[in-house]
Amino acid sequence: MENFRNVGLIGRPGSDEVVQTLRHAITFLQSRGCNIILDADIEQLLGRHGLQVGDRKILGESADLVVVVGGDGCLLGAARALSRYGTPVVGVNRGHLGFLTDIMPGELERQLGAILDGHYETEKRFLLDAEVRREQHPVGGGSALNDVVIRAGDSVHMVEFELWIEGRFVYNQRSDGLIIATPTGSTAYALSGGGPIMHPKLDAIVLVPMHPHALSSRPLVVDGNSEIKLVIRSGHNSPLVSCDGQAGVRAQAGDVIYVRKRAQKLTLLHPHDHDFYEACRSKLGWSSKP
Amino acid sequence: MENFRNVGLIGRPGSDEVVQTLRHAITFLQSRGCNIILDADIEQLLGRHGLQVGDRKILGESADLVVVVGGDGCLLGAARALSRYGTPVVGVNRGHLGFLTDIMPGELERQLGAILDGHYETEKRFLLDAEVRREQHPVGGGSALNDVVIRAGDSVHMVEFELWIEGRFVYNQRSDGLIIATPTGSTAYALSGGGPIMHPKLDAIVLVPMHPHALSSRPLVVDGNSEIKLVIRSGHNSPLVSCDGQAGVRAQAGDVIYVRKRAQKLTLLHPHDHDFYEACRSKLGWSSKP
Amino acid sequence: MENFRNVGLIGRPGSDEVVQTLRHAITFLQSRGCNIILDADIEQLLGRHGLQVGDRKILGESADLVVVVGGDGCLLGAARALSRYGTPVVGVNRGHLGFLTDIMPGELERQLGAILDGHYETEKRFLLDAEVRREQHPVGGGSALNDVVIRAGDSVHMVEFELWIEGRFVYNQRSDGLIIATPTGSTAYALSGGGPIMHPKLDAIVLVPMHPHALSSRPLVVDGNSEIKLVIRSGHNSPLVSCDGQAGVRAQAGDVIYVRKRAQKLTLLHPHDHDFYEACRSKLGWSSKP
Amino acid sequence: MENFRNVGLIGRPGSDEVVQTLRHAITFLQSRGCNIILDADIEQLLGRHGLQVGDRKILGESADLVVVVGGDGCLLGAARALSRYGTPVVGVNRGHLGFLTDIMPGELERQLGAILDGHYETEKRFLLDAEVRREQHPVGGGSALNDVVIRAGDSVHMVEFELWIEGRFVYNQRSDGLIIATPTGSTAYALSGGGPIMHPKLDAIVLVPMHPHALSSRPLVVDGNSEIKLVIRSGHNSPLVSCDGQAGVRAQAGDVIYVRKRAQKLTLLHPHDHDFYEACRSKLGWSSKP
Repeated sequence: MENFRNVGLIGRPGSDEVVQTLRHAITFLQSRGCNIILDADIEQLLGRHGLQVGDRKILGESADLVVVVGGDGCLLGAARALSRYGTPVVGVNRGHLGFLTDIMPGELERQLGAILDGHYETEKRFLLDAEVRREQHPVGGGSALNDVVIRAGDSVHMVEFELWIEGRFVYNQRSDGLIIATPTGSTAYALSGGGPIMHPKLDAIVLVPMHPHALSSRPLVVDGNSEIKLVIRSGHNSPLVSCDGQAGVRAQAGDVIYVRKRAQKLTLLHPHDHDFYEACRSKLGWSSKP
Repeated sequence: MENFRNVGLIGRPGSDEVVQTLRHAITFLQSRGCNIILDADIEQLLGRHGLQVGDRKILGESADLVVVVGGDGCLLGAARALSRYGTPVVGVNRGHLGFLTDIMPGELERQLGAILDGHYETEKRFLLDAEVRREQHPVGGGSALNDVVIRAGDSVHMVEFELWIEGRFVYNQRSDGLIIATPTGSTAYALSGGGPIMHPKLDAIVLVPMHPHALSSRPLVVDGNSEIKLVIRSGHNSPLVSCDGQAGVRAQAGDVIYVRKRAQKLTLLHPHDHDFYEACRSKLGWSSKP
Repeated sequence: MENFRNVGLIGRPGSDEVVQTLRHAITFLQSRGCNIILDADIEQLLGRHGLQVGDRKILGESADLVVVVGGDGCLLGAARALSRYGTPVVGVNRGHLGFLTDIMPGELERQLGAILDGHYETEKRFLLDAEVRREQHPVGGGSALNDVVIRAGDSVHMVEFELWIEGRFVYNQRSDGLIIATPTGSTAYALSGGGPIMHPKLDAIVLVPMHPHALSSRPLVVDGNSEIKLVIRSGHNSPLVSCDGQAGVRAQAGDVIYVRKRAQKLTLLHPHDHDFYEACRSKLGWSSKP
Repeated sequence: MENFRNVGLIGRPGSDEVVQTLRHAITFLQSRGCNIILDADIEQLLGRHGLQVGDRKILGESADLVVVVGGDGCLLGAARALSRYGTPVVGVNRGHLGFLTDIMPGELERQLGAILDGHYETEKRFLLDAEVRREQHPVGGGSALNDVVIRAGDSVHMVEFELWIEGRFVYNQRSDGLIIATPTGSTAYALSGGGPIMHPKLDAIVLVPMHPHALSSRPLVVDGNSEIKLVIRSGHNSPLVSCDGQAGVRAQAGDVIYVRKRAQKLTLLHPHDHDFYEACRSKLGWSSKP
């Protein structure tokens, strides 16, 4: 059995409820004899605490488990930082709509306790790496658990690009941009663009055109190991490449953007009663058994 | 019968083909005894010409007819400037996809000649006026023949707003923005967002949510005389209000945006064989009679 | 002020709750001195009652107001029967999703009482007439408050037809069929096919292709007075023309189907606090003011 | 190198062009020394021919390669019959839209010759098996290369069913039906219902709801090895379970429908220059490189 001795704690700043749940988690984890390492970003939220503090590198290297308190957005950030260390992550839901953060605050002791006792399911979620190259040289990039979005650099003009998958030309597209999403991201932004819901176990990537000029453009699902390449053709605005809705990199005409599965995956822990379809029913409003 | 004695000429800059068609139009119109007034924006494209030149105000006040050479985008600009004068406009197609510019260059003499002879159909197209108000005071606005688009001010955050129609609260929406389109605009940007095609004769406005967070948001069609009001709620970016894809006005949290039908309409002239559905078939790829 | 002396009562059979609300309505209407005429279809539901009974023709001719207890489906049937007499109709909601039946059973006395006192809003809703013609002769037809649907006669083959609007050829379509809906029907079946929501006041008809073979087919909104004509081209199955989801008429290759606005409209009464967008919010799950 | 000595020939009846291409193929294959086995269904199309004739069982057992002349529909039928024998299949396009039949008649000698010479790509495409069980006993079923469709048994009522995937309850749905498609079928009927395009190499199944009553229903992509189970709940019509658009089995309330990947796959041969995205571009009208 695994032994979660050193437990990292990450939280979404700016919410009293998050602070309250963090305090609750600290008390509980200490009662279970865990050594707590507090994320440096939330240290000041907690007043005097006497706990060990570390940045995400330290959390990744030292923690046996990281507990994230907040919404899916907060967990996305933790996942991008921690996936390289293989540290398991569990999410406590303190936002709206949580597909990733599936422990409810009221169930914290019971469900987190069960996980500490070794009763949990392990799920691997893959991330995407994006790289922007200019005249063969990398000029920026990032990682995403949900999606890499390439979109027009201002709100008025479209972006025009060639799409290549596994070295094959797919099409030339004029649109507001392209969403490239993992199964994890398929229930987030990609869904609002008409993309399908993909089961988290699926090894696939979906490409969802955003307001495409051509009526025949449709979401496209390809193998998760596919190399996706975009060649930016229009130059009069600076298309933005953003990962999980973060600020991102500005591209220009002629730039080539590569998107590929990242080697290291996120290890996500769930309580045993976790169910993806149950999350869909409650979060998307699907009807239940009558 | 009307008498098109003074004819204005507007063209899209940056294309040799447009210049060539403008020259062709000048020769033809002069052979028919028309007095030509050249739009000041294209004067220098034509070298020495000896023609009268005027800005769009002068064109609006003096011309009996304005011929626009270019694509739909060029005609949109002319429409916004000329609708207040009631000057009839006819479009010669030199771009891609033309729903508004329905004379083909090769048919210029025959079709423009027929119009000068009084053989044409007159169509009225309505425009929308947008006004942004801050603490009761107007801070900007514009007019649109196709659409008024309110969208998130940067590419990363959503915009959140309340929608009110005819004084009734409709919903609170989080999305990339909202497209408010006329029938004319229903075959343009609104179509790429899943909006319906509306026949040009319809007195209606369509509201198309852009990547709405809620799965239940759908395009909404309301009477063309409805007053549409948005109250911007999110403040951390500066949503952009743009008309027909022009640069636009930056709004902020608390601002109220009004969109209403403009009093003056565009007068569009068509050759007699003009057919909206024929334009749909050729431009959207609808199948023809077998 | 109108005087609703003779009040007709229609109900959806097969539900104890409907019977209970009917009894409640009878007691209340009698206490207000109304003369009740019971729809023949529900007479036996009520046991011994001593009330006047009549079919829908008698209801249409004699009643000053008809109260319909059930869901939207029940009101659709009443509307088709009563629109020719101009009898005002009000709906009491005893089904799921009610856009038409907007009195809740618990509010029956208050809201129905207000209507009897003359406090209500009158709304006119138009219907569609469908007519199937074979070699110039009518072979069947019907009326619809929601929609006329032409669809493939078996589940395996597509239907192929030409669409003409106001005498103009639109396109040749291969699909599972076509939904032709009024604004009233735009929140019903047409919505599930990707059609827009149309405000009830709009004088428009929407045509929604069902699983069209061509990716470029989109919902099309035309003026409410347009004559819509379909010419059936494929003959190996017998396409079904159905009104408001009723059984319908079988068509065959060469048949011509006309759909036009019906001359007589339905008169629908609403309590004063009725609001179409409120119905959308509660029934479609649109978000309310936070 | 493989040796395609015995070559089966299948064709779509009812077209002179198919007959012409079949004759062309016979002449060419004989010139290459192949032994031809003619599908019994097309024997009479060819007049006196002196060739060996066999049903699909004989083709499956004896042929080293089967050439199908027709459209995708014809190849679907051959695939369902031949997949159990593992016989490789190649398609010559004589219909509309061919994603499966990628040899053009004019290229028959060159491309079929190259395949006989061993220059080809081999692609495995999986099929779905559908089984309808009533009170634990099988009452019918079928196989599909494109899709299994469960839909309402008449055109007027919806079907209501529970969906279970891998033993997990997904949702209760009311709709016109459900399309369950392979990657091969994702460019066929499923696409017209809003499903994504899935690359043929993907090991996934897409479930596309048909006109779902709930606005939150979306296409769902799951692993290709998932067991999909539907429990039919509504009984007043007899929902139809059809495979690749064939006639199918009637289900009733309480029936359980299982859909799973079939053990044997179709072996499809392609010329070396075959490209899935090229097929998308030409058949769906995607824009090419400018």
